[in-house]
Amino acid sequence: MSDFTDIAIIGGTGYAGAELLRLAYGHPRLRVTRIVGQSRAGEPVARVLPSLTGLYEGDVVAFDAADVAGAATVAFTALPHGASAGVVAELRGLGMRVLDLSADFRLDDPEVYAEWYGEHLAPDLFGQAVYGLVELERERLRGAELIAIPGCYPTASILGLAPLVAEGLVGLDGLIIDAKSGATGAGRKPSLGTHLPEVGEGIRAYKAAGHHRHTPEIEMVLGGLAGSPLRVTFTPHLVPMSRGILATAYGMASVGATAEACTEAARELYRGSPSVVVLDPGAHPDTGWVRASNQAFVSYAKDTRTGRIVAQTAIDNLVKGTAGQALQCLNVAMGWDEGEGVSAPATWP
Amino acid sequence: MSDFTDIAIIGGTGYAGAELLRLAYGHPRLRVTRIVGQSRAGEPVARVLPSLTGLYEGDVVAFDAADVAGAATVAFTALPHGASAGVVAELRGLGMRVLDLSADFRLDDPEVYAEWYGEHLAPDLFGQAVYGLVELERERLRGAELIAIPGCYPTASILGLAPLVAEGLVGLDGLIIDAKSGATGAGRKPSLGTHLPEVGEGIRAYKAAGHHRHTPEIEMVLGGLAGSPLRVTFTPHLVPMSRGILATAYGMASVGATAEACTEAARELYRGSPSVVVLDPGAHPDTGWVRASNQAFVSYAKDTRTGRIVAQTAIDNLVKGTAGQALQCLNVAMGWDEGEGVSAPATWP
Amino acid sequence: MSDFTDIAIIGGTGYAGAELLRLAYGHPRLRVTRIVGQSRAGEPVARVLPSLTGLYEGDVVAFDAADVAGAATVAFTALPHGASAGVVAELRGLGMRVLDLSADFRLDDPEVYAEWYGEHLAPDLFGQAVYGLVELERERLRGAELIAIPGCYPTASILGLAPLVAEGLVGLDGLIIDAKSGATGAGRKPSLGTHLPEVGEGIRAYKAAGHHRHTPEIEMVLGGLAGSPLRVTFTPHLVPMSRGILATAYGMASVGATAEACTEAARELYRGSPSVVVLDPGAHPDTGWVRASNQAFVSYAKDTRTGRIVAQTAIDNLVKGTAGQALQCLNVAMGWDEGEGVSAPATWP
Amino acid sequence: MSDFTDIAIIGGTGYAGAELLRLAYGHPRLRVTRIVGQSRAGEPVARVLPSLTGLYEGDVVAFDAADVAGAATVAFTALPHGASAGVVAELRGLGMRVLDLSADFRLDDPEVYAEWYGEHLAPDLFGQAVYGLVELERERLRGAELIAIPGCYPTASILGLAPLVAEGLVGLDGLIIDAKSGATGAGRKPSLGTHLPEVGEGIRAYKAAGHHRHTPEIEMVLGGLAGSPLRVTFTPHLVPMSRGILATAYGMASVGATAEACTEAARELYRGSPSVVVLDPGAHPDTGWVRASNQAFVSYAKDTRTGRIVAQTAIDNLVKGTAGQALQCLNVAMGWDEGEGVSAPATWP
Repeated sequence: MSDFTDIAIIGGTGYAGAELLRLAYGHPRLRVTRIVGQSRAGEPVARVLPSLTGLYEGDVVAFDAADVAGAATVAFTALPHGASAGVVAELRGLGMRVLDLSADFRLDDPEVYAEWYGEHLAPDLFGQAVYGLVELERERLRGAELIAIPGCYPTASILGLAPLVAEGLVGLDGLIIDAKSGATGAGRKPSLGTHLPEVGEGIRAYKAAGHHRHTPEIEMVLGGLAGSPLRVTFTPHLVPMSRGILATAYGMASVGATAEACTEAARELYRGSPSVVVLDPGAHPDTGWVRASNQAFVSYAKDTRTGRIVAQTAIDNLVKGTAGQALQCLNVAMGWDEGEGVSAPATWP
Repeated sequence: MSDFTDIAIIGGTGYAGAELLRLAYGHPRLRVTRIVGQSRAGEPVARVLPSLTGLYEGDVVAFDAADVAGAATVAFTALPHGASAGVVAELRGLGMRVLDLSADFRLDDPEVYAEWYGEHLAPDLFGQAVYGLVELERERLRGAELIAIPGCYPTASILGLAPLVAEGLVGLDGLIIDAKSGATGAGRKPSLGTHLPEVGEGIRAYKAAGHHRHTPEIEMVLGGLAGSPLRVTFTPHLVPMSRGILATAYGMASVGATAEACTEAARELYRGSPSVVVLDPGAHPDTGWVRASNQAFVSYAKDTRTGRIVAQTAIDNLVKGTAGQALQCLNVAMGWDEGEGVSAPATWP
Repeated sequence: MSDFTDIAIIGGTGYAGAELLRLAYGHPRLRVTRIVGQSRAGEPVARVLPSLTGLYEGDVVAFDAADVAGAATVAFTALPHGASAGVVAELRGLGMRVLDLSADFRLDDPEVYAEWYGEHLAPDLFGQAVYGLVELERERLRGAELIAIPGCYPTASILGLAPLVAEGLVGLDGLIIDAKSGATGAGRKPSLGTHLPEVGEGIRAYKAAGHHRHTPEIEMVLGGLAGSPLRVTFTPHLVPMSRGILATAYGMASVGATAEACTEAARELYRGSPSVVVLDPGAHPDTGWVRASNQAFVSYAKDTRTGRIVAQTAIDNLVKGTAGQALQCLNVAMGWDEGEGVSAPATWP
Repeated sequence: MSDFTDIAIIGGTGYAGAELLRLAYGHPRLRVTRIVGQSRAGEPVARVLPSLTGLYEGDVVAFDAADVAGAATVAFTALPHGASAGVVAELRGLGMRVLDLSADFRLDDPEVYAEWYGEHLAPDLFGQAVYGLVELERERLRGAELIAIPGCYPTASILGLAPLVAEGLVGLDGLIIDAKSGATGAGRKPSLGTHLPEVGEGIRAYKAAGHHRHTPEIEMVLGGLAGSPLRVTFTPHLVPMSRGILATAYGMASVGATAEACTEAARELYRGSPSVVVLDPGAHPDTGWVRASNQAFVSYAKDTRTGRIVAQTAIDNLVKGTAGQALQCLNVAMGWDEGEGVSAPATWP
């Protein structure tokens, strides 16, 4: 009777959840039947997320696995790392298709997970998920029941470097990723580090020297493409803006690796991938050009004086970096058009 | 054969034109067949408007009325005040439906136009257009062939004050509108007044004391609702952000005019108007809640100590204030659902 | 032996305290001997306020009245409203000169205080302080031992309106003050209302209709100048910037009250006041022009169509609105040059 | 009779000139006697630079070398690269001490200059200037009559890397500098690239792959310290803020090069340099901490997983990166205290 697939959003009152609600509203095949949020349970959605006033009726509800499974067939879990695994296991046990936005199912090595995140609450499921970077995993995602949505930094970092690493256009030693993120990347919980007076008119790094937990995820994927382990130096910065990630990546050019060759390799890899736009050599993607869209803009340049390739990638951290990518994965998993609900142009300017 | 209505955008490389392109892309009944822009003619759309890379192929073209009329049945003219009238006349003469985003056809008194804008280049058409504020003019817009899209400041100012003026809830003397706009309102032409270092971290008024040309438009509409002429004190401010207008309007409360009564009057007036959200008394609409959406959020408060009503309205100046409103008007004129292509939720946060 | 006057800053780790430290560093007669901050006691100043690294050695300390009074002769109390009165009383009891940045000693009517702030913890001192708006109270401030530093909104509001009210250039009924503030005005405590993603790219009012506690302070001072009680409609807005307040005030022009007459009245009133710059009629002061300076820029315009006077005032809320004004008061109280330590030009752009 | 040294500012209406005026106002030994600006000649200083209203009287004047030399003994030339050399030569010929803020006298190799900047208009003077990075050239600056003030990017880049290169703590191959600048770095001339709507809420690189003209300056200084030529990969980004540069630099750690060793080397090199603050290992300097101050904050971290050293440097591009550094140089050249007029704490927050 219903043409809709019913979905539940667990952790619907944070930014990832809010973005899922925004995008799902425009998705012709989806209907949101539960918005779960522990700390705001019982409040009207419109009070918690005023931009959705008039679009979503009803209240945020507390988590109840049976209720969720009764109301929806697909769950998006947007919970903190560590806390997510248990909820995912419960929902999977009730037969739901689950797209998990945490890091809990992204890695393939339990020891690496333990090192960076601590104990895993659903070890049986570890390694069962498909990694949801559609451009690299499209085939494995078809029909997938458990999908680990990549992190925002890994998405930006990998999309730019993947063609280079896969095609041997850069050396695997000495890859450096200097990333710049808007403040939504820090989540919705207020702190001095996101307090407008302190961060609204300056820039700073906030983790350096290999301490950010997205590092092993980047290494896992790029290492897989390269066919051998590799390590990257990753530095995230906080930029005074709300949305967007720009990843500026550096690698030593292999023999023959011109900017044109890198561009060509990217266009080859991303042929058939509507979410990736490969700009001409020397162009500089701007996060403003992908704001609120599911697109990634990538470009390549070569510093002929030093032999370095510079790969730049701009995404919206909440869309291609989180919620849009999740819907894109669901589209593929369900056999729908990959762009359903995630094809709107960017909000520019 | 084609289910699409073909449209041309004249002045497609400024912000209003770009926003029309963004929204038209998601409108299921429209197809853009010409993007006209004099100063960038011959350049690929993607170079002029990089956020549309991959979405619109082809080049910006120079204006040629016959070519436009051959390629489309509807034209949106997004040209400077004064320059628009001649183009509109030409396109109307070729039988096109025209939605004009300039001020050239908004006013109903040619002397007022002359006083604020100078000579009118199509005096025969003056007064022929329907004023495109859908919430007030829905019936007259059905089938309309020439529509004058309201200004962004008038849209914000009128939507908040209309219920009060129409229902006699405020006195007609002494209405004050203190408006705050993002920098897109100044257009795409660079100047010191929009140069990031000079305006990116401060606020200032830029016209005071009745000198802004949107003033008579506000007075015309509100005076019409009131049934007698009125004057407003209007002060626009530039806020360090890209999009959004907040209009804070003040009027002396009539007897019995509580915040609740004002709210109720607004809900009555805007019943059946999906683009207006009337918040509960005392709420404060935020331009961030309507970013990139076609919604207007309005609220009412009463200062019981001074007897003043405070009406607040937040819109996105480029959407409900310009391009979204234009599409909404076209929907009504064509007999389509009013929300087609302009119902996407706001880009928040 | 020492040419310095030793000062203590109570509440030194918030923005008002930090700004006092910044300005005191450049004041040739002051030496900071205690920085008191309850929640950060025991931490190095440089960790709590990194911009002062290398300028202030030592730790933040917990409050101990005897210790403070032993180390300094002047105390600046930058504590929350309500909490300040008790500390002020204690320090006054030990003979210190106290400049209080809270609202606890600004008002002259204990019933008004009780209505807006609640119980007062030092009722014996109530009414004993000199109100520290130097431009209006310079004479009474000489030698003053207890000074109530005005609020940031009252400073901006009063400086623009004082000449008009004092000279009868506007009617006393219907004064409206539409104020726009940077986020430092909300203090250093993180909350959703100052969380960069939610407020960094939009504008909203946050109190309307006479609910802001600075309202009675404005009315007290302006009423005093007018010689009769008056009420104002005051609406504060949050602007996406760190510092600055712009107050746009509206009043009905009296007969003969041109923009020039208002400007002249202001120049007369502020003759000999180095912190106030009266711009030519029609100019629009920008908060960017007073950033980090102790200056107030004011201007006047008249809407001849409606008979309204528009008075605009721009200040830096942390300097002329708080810490700079406090040092300016101390200069006058001590008989020093009024501009000592608070004469640096604005940080522009 | 006069204790003041009279100075002239050539190019006084751009941002570098305005910043010199701001700082010179607070310098106890300087008096500005001429403000030269070709395009705004004849206008009052206060109209061109409103933040200086009431501080500088008189008009901007057109350039007249004899007039300048008659009115001042020291000239600061803040003119475009290429245009500066001729003016400098003229003023030097009249016996003035000149501090040149352009790139015209920074480089030591005329062929490199020609490659990056074109023809030099005063080849006889080329190589005669002392490079004004005080921390490295303090001795040579004493008494210097012609000083080339370093670029903003080189200042930030060099201060962080100098200790590492000088002490052999990083390899000379493969140095990467990823720099992020506020928009004042682009100057005062409006363009789309600094138009608030297009750049106010996004980040992008604007030169990549060795095309920025500050590159050879960085290489010259670091190569000099290393004792052998080296090349760097330099990428500048535009950040949505007015002031500030953050340089994140990467190099391969030499044996034994811990974060602590790097920090210690920096503290050793900058002992006696009041403008450089070396933070503890792992700290992240924020451009907000040095806003409007002449300080550079540097820190070091080591990514032990990849063997990379990450050197971070934050400066205010207009102060330590331009005008403050120029005054600091003058102080040294004249034998005054190095911190005169450039010791004010940062404007934070």
